[in-house]
Amino acid sequence: LSGTDPELNAGIKQMSFLTTEILRKKRDGKELSDDELKFLVEGFASGQIPDYQATAWLMASTIKGLSANETLVLTRAMKESGQSLDWRGLSANFKNARFADKHSTGGVGDKVSLILAPVAAALGVKVPMMSGRGLGHTGGTVDKLQSIPGFNMFPSINEMIRGLDEVGVCMMCQSAELCPADRKLYSLRDVTATIESVPLITASIVSKKWAEGVDAIVYDVKCGTGAFMETRDEAVRLAHSLVETSKRAGMAAAAWVTRMEEPLGAFVGNALEVLESVYILRNEFPSPLHKRLAQALGELSLTLAAEMAALAGVQPSFEIAQKKAREALESGAAWKIFEHMCKAQGAPTDWETRLAKAPVVKDYLAPRAGSVGEIHSRELGLAGLRIGVGRQRAEDKVDPATGFELLVARGDKVEEGQPLLRAHLRSGSQFEEIQPELSRSFVIRNVMRDEATHPTKLAVERIS
Amino acid sequence: LSGTDPELNAGIKQMSFLTTEILRKKRDGKELSDDELKFLVEGFASGQIPDYQATAWLMASTIKGLSANETLVLTRAMKESGQSLDWRGLSANFKNARFADKHSTGGVGDKVSLILAPVAAALGVKVPMMSGRGLGHTGGTVDKLQSIPGFNMFPSINEMIRGLDEVGVCMMCQSAELCPADRKLYSLRDVTATIESVPLITASIVSKKWAEGVDAIVYDVKCGTGAFMETRDEAVRLAHSLVETSKRAGMAAAAWVTRMEEPLGAFVGNALEVLESVYILRNEFPSPLHKRLAQALGELSLTLAAEMAALAGVQPSFEIAQKKAREALESGAAWKIFEHMCKAQGAPTDWETRLAKAPVVKDYLAPRAGSVGEIHSRELGLAGLRIGVGRQRAEDKVDPATGFELLVARGDKVEEGQPLLRAHLRSGSQFEEIQPELSRSFVIRNVMRDEATHPTKLAVERIS
Repeated sequence: LSGTDPELNAGIKQMSFLTTEILRKKRDGKELSDDELKFLVEGFASGQIPDYQATAWLMASTIKGLSANETLVLTRAMKESGQSLDWRGLSANFKNARFADKHSTGGVGDKVSLILAPVAAALGVKVPMMSGRGLGHTGGTVDKLQSIPGFNMFPSINEMIRGLDEVGVCMMCQSAELCPADRKLYSLRDVTATIESVPLITASIVSKKWAEGVDAIVYDVKCGTGAFMETRDEAVRLAHSLVETSKRAGMAAAAWVTRMEEPLGAFVGNALEVLESVYILRNEFPSPLHKRLAQALGELSLTLAAEMAALAGVQPSFEIAQKKAREALESGAAWKIFEHMCKAQGAPTDWETRLAKAPVVKDYLAPRAGSVGEIHSRELGLAGLRIGVGRQRAEDKVDPATGFELLVARGDKVEEGQPLLRAHLRSGSQFEEIQPELSRSFVIRNVMRDEATHPTKLAVERIS
Repeated sequence: LSGTDPELNAGIKQMSFLTTEILRKKRDGKELSDDELKFLVEGFASGQIPDYQATAWLMASTIKGLSANETLVLTRAMKESGQSLDWRGLSANFKNARFADKHSTGGVGDKVSLILAPVAAALGVKVPMMSGRGLGHTGGTVDKLQSIPGFNMFPSINEMIRGLDEVGVCMMCQSAELCPADRKLYSLRDVTATIESVPLITASIVSKKWAEGVDAIVYDVKCGTGAFMETRDEAVRLAHSLVETSKRAGMAAAAWVTRMEEPLGAFVGNALEVLESVYILRNEFPSPLHKRLAQALGELSLTLAAEMAALAGVQPSFEIAQKKAREALESGAAWKIFEHMCKAQGAPTDWETRLAKAPVVKDYLAPRAGSVGEIHSRELGLAGLRIGVGRQRAEDKVDPATGFELLVARGDKVEEGQPLLRAHLRSGSQFEEIQPELSRSFVIRNVMRDEATHPTKLAVERIS
């Protein structure tokens, strides 16, 4: 950054000196002042503070932690590094409207957003849902919706307003103008072992929801072997931090800690998960097994949608909201909203018949007789990465058509050679590539254990 | 770093992934393996690991610490990032020679090297002394010697060999080929609050002495308000780490913890400190006050020179070495070696009369009557920075002529208006600029206290 302008050089030296003093404070475990944190985040965002000072701060913060106030100030500074939306300021029609969203820490087969958003809209809450692309072994809502031909994930501000006004829901890709400081810091955290910090995770998530301009936010914090937070304790800690920071930011907030061991539902894959969402929204399943596998997923979606509506104040209580959410699903009201949204966002009326289909289908067979003990969603997620369901790096492309379809549930008795899973593939050779992950995905036990049954309830704890 | 070559990109991703895994280990306070640390240091040195990962590791290491083995491995990896010298391999004349050096953590007015090197050479040890430039409020030996007209601080390898063979001492500037990884890491530590880590300081210092190829090394670890390590505990901790790591690296080593409150001797400044060294080596002083102020400095130089000779094994014991060191000084043998060295390194015979002299001299007067309680060397050092004695940044130039001459010692009674210090300046306006630092440098007390007398002994503890 240094050049020949002596005044500019003096300014750069002064900035570097101040930054070093702030790093020293955090290194020694002291709390930074609001001004110090703002100075750092604004400096990182503008490029005036170099990456090598940013990562030193990230490491010190990951080891020493951030106070509740530091977390809020960081969250606000990241929000203020970019655009923020103010829906009631944007349209007179929104004078009495309430806006809400949901955020999930990510799971395999997690298509809750696709079901919950139209249900919540049916309960009277406006849902301006901004999602990210998938990264790693868990999928992203953007990738799933983009498997619907013509679906526009990049609506203009006027298209968003119209969608929210007329349909009640608009689903879109997070704009690059939202929290640019967060994006910059995240890419550095990814390569410096500073991802796993509860306050940094909190600031990254809450800043984006805050910028989205919602009144209420519900968090789905996954725990288990297939989740980012493996233990319940870790998940509860993150849930508390998310809820507290959101409330301090002025949003109504609650979190559900939910189990993520096996995949959510029967399907993993972009178009395949859209298909399963349609089954649930229509309450029409290709088989009793599909219905059984989708049950817990549907329940979770209704719980979270009801939470959104209750938190936003458009329903008098969570219990009433939950009852109405079930009605919205069973009456087909939610499905109508989903169809309306697809149309409003550019999909042709026959999009369902035009969903991408994989050219090759191969079944993975039980290596021996027994009962299905565990279905490891992390391993299935890693297999998905190999066949294009997800992406390893931000610049990778995903395949809309590939994925997996479970043919058994946990607890089921199986014969040797019985199909456990149907792989939807781009080519036959992909099936060979994923054999190691598939064989690790299924645990076949000799004896039937009582506890090894498909769960019907995923939510384990509510934090508010 | 990423480009279009897919194999290269895959390699970069793999390297980034491995580095992140290693950062995670250190973040969690675990000990890195030898291979992991070598991977990091070699990656930093070659530029394959970016600065933003280096600084995350520096911060994690500063907070979590390094084990004794990690410190040694880091030290070795930094040494091996550049050239190393092997004196006995370079000349048959050195078959039975023993090589030793001294390192000081830096003090104001610290011209010990200039006195100790010829004394140690007189005791029979070869002294290939490589020094750095000064940075911050403490001076550097290189800057001092460069005030001698014609003195070549960059001798060729053959000139070094000849100097060590014929004179017994060769003083030079640290080569850029010595420990390049250390230089790179140091510049990052400077701006990320990761200077103050005992293991990182240790590796930085010991790697350079190891590369210098000496058999023995004595450390002068300063403690006090004018030193980098302010408390005795901190200094002792660093001393132990330096000695232990040097021994593990195969060198004989000891450390002296010495006091650094007021300046060492009467003079602070580049040419001025050469002048005071000449006074001591010749045992001829301009006044009894100059002699009194130089006494503790001379004693410390003899102690450390004797330690070098004893550690290197060229003297049977420290006590005998100390006696011989005093003789070498009093007989003029050390002064002859200093003169010989100056000649061998390119200085003209009349260099003494050609030392730079400041054009302006101004006396700083006692603001009131009392006794001199404290003389704060840190404040004097900061005043020195303003008039070019030292440098704030590596790229700054120093002034050979400017500096300070104490006209009183601690404990002296003074009258109001009596000169306390003579400032040697480039211009009269410099005197105005340094008034705040000068007024903070001298504490004048109402009552004479017993403890407030000029110290005659600076060494407080020996660590071996």
